[in-house]
Amino acid sequence: MSLTVVGSIAFDSVRTPFGERERMLGGSAVHFSLAASFFTTVRAVGPVGDDFGDEELAVLQGRGVETDDIEHVPGGQTFFWRAHYDHDLNVAHTDDTQLNVFGDFEPKLSDASREAEVLFLGNIQPELQRRVRRQCGARLVALDSMNLWINTTREALAAAIAETDCLMLNDAELRMLTEEPNLARAARRAMDLGPEIVVAKRGEYGAALFTGEGFFAIPGYLLEDVCDPTGAGDSFAGGFLGYLDAEDAERPSPEAMRRAMAYGTALASFNVEDFGTERVARLTREEIEERYEALRRLTHFDLAVT
Amino acid sequence: MSLTVVGSIAFDSVRTPFGERERMLGGSAVHFSLAASFFTTVRAVGPVGDDFGDEELAVLQGRGVETDDIEHVPGGQTFFWRAHYDHDLNVAHTDDTQLNVFGDFEPKLSDASREAEVLFLGNIQPELQRRVRRQCGARLVALDSMNLWINTTREALAAAIAETDCLMLNDAELRMLTEEPNLARAARRAMDLGPEIVVAKRGEYGAALFTGEGFFAIPGYLLEDVCDPTGAGDSFAGGFLGYLDAEDAERPSPEAMRRAMAYGTALASFNVEDFGTERVARLTREEIEERYEALRRLTHFDLAVT
Repeated sequence: MSLTVVGSIAFDSVRTPFGERERMLGGSAVHFSLAASFFTTVRAVGPVGDDFGDEELAVLQGRGVETDDIEHVPGGQTFFWRAHYDHDLNVAHTDDTQLNVFGDFEPKLSDASREAEVLFLGNIQPELQRRVRRQCGARLVALDSMNLWINTTREALAAAIAETDCLMLNDAELRMLTEEPNLARAARRAMDLGPEIVVAKRGEYGAALFTGEGFFAIPGYLLEDVCDPTGAGDSFAGGFLGYLDAEDAERPSPEAMRRAMAYGTALASFNVEDFGTERVARLTREEIEERYEALRRLTHFDLAVT
Repeated sequence: MSLTVVGSIAFDSVRTPFGERERMLGGSAVHFSLAASFFTTVRAVGPVGDDFGDEELAVLQGRGVETDDIEHVPGGQTFFWRAHYDHDLNVAHTDDTQLNVFGDFEPKLSDASREAEVLFLGNIQPELQRRVRRQCGARLVALDSMNLWINTTREALAAAIAETDCLMLNDAELRMLTEEPNLARAARRAMDLGPEIVVAKRGEYGAALFTGEGFFAIPGYLLEDVCDPTGAGDSFAGGFLGYLDAEDAERPSPEAMRRAMAYGTALASFNVEDFGTERVARLTREEIEERYEALRRLTHFDLAVT
């Protein structure tokens, strides 16, 4: 078992009603890797600049993430994002985006990364996702995207989606992609594009899973202290795919996918408890199991076995 | 066991992307009564005008609802509401509200209604809810309200809430009432007002239950065909409280409340499948049990017994 993720590696400056941080480690590949690292071996692929150093690498390596495919671009600056959240923590207000080294990124996977059994194509330009996809023969390929690519590169995104097994989008993005306001219908239309699995991320409301067998939904863990939601979706994906990679089956079973939804929800709930990667970086597997169990108590209304 | 509900009895004219209806039977007491009627004996309390006749009574009586406390106001017109929904079915756009006989409503409960063990104070003016409350010594009293009363009669509403055991609001209303954006904190603050049980209705995302023992959440049933969401919240409350009345315990157990959340969710999901009361009026208990079981499959990720 092994998992490769391609996505952004970033510095994020974020302000929420609960505080602010300047240039913290972030990006989809980072949040995903840290979450998935509790379940499997993760290889992170993405470019960084001269401003990215040993301190940042240490956060990833401290969780056992393989960083050989993090490409240092000499003279370049790392991707930068500045945003703030008001009281509605479901909505990020972007104040600045600097692509920097990501503008000319041409992904090159090492042999180890190519041989991964599970591949996560984090939210980057769809053409880049396709180039990574072609380099990797993973048994399970999942893809995330965003409104920007739905609006500007819809054809390339549809082609990228067609080449994947699992589409993971916010529910609003899924509705936008399919132009279908009903979530269950939107998921079915998305499956018509190719993927056998569709996961709708629903922010604080949790997530829903759609497959040929039917659907499944899990509410978000109801926290009294939410600090910073940045990266929650990628942490969800990391918990979900990390668990499925560890299950090590050729095709994930319906039961494994449900448990993976719960692990994804658990990881996302930890992610938002502190700024950036701070909470997940100091997380333990024991805490994850405790929250998985708490989620079970929070969601099961009838404990009788079928 | 017996359940009394006071609330609006109405004619609703509703347009959704899937069609429209003129002057259909509606109102909080009607939707609630029909949903609760599958579990217990329900008595509906509220005023109607000359335009309310045998056809409307027959819908309620067809489900065994006791209609003796539906007060006919000679020369009056029944409460009327006109609204439309766009593609976001979570948002009702009110086009017209005519209080009519509701403007001078002075609730008078019959002895049978006073002796109910469970009382639901549907969304009406808080002072009216208090007057009903004083007439009824129910072991379990639940209350619904809305943004209008939060904004215009906050003190009276807080007093009404203080006299109840269970507060049932939309999550946005719960946040507004407590001025607390975090749902779990908002629920705790609402419990500080008096109720031991707080239910946050979350539209298509389901509902969350907060008690001294902890919290529980259930996602909405993911339907491909949602026709008209009017009355879904009251159908939820009817399924929830109807089941708890049937359980017939002095205080509802945590397990009973979780199952009640699932029955409420099931009833709400049927409610939205057709216009107004049409789907619930032709529903069977067998269909409810099937959906309860489907909800179990939709939400349980781990069927092992603790």
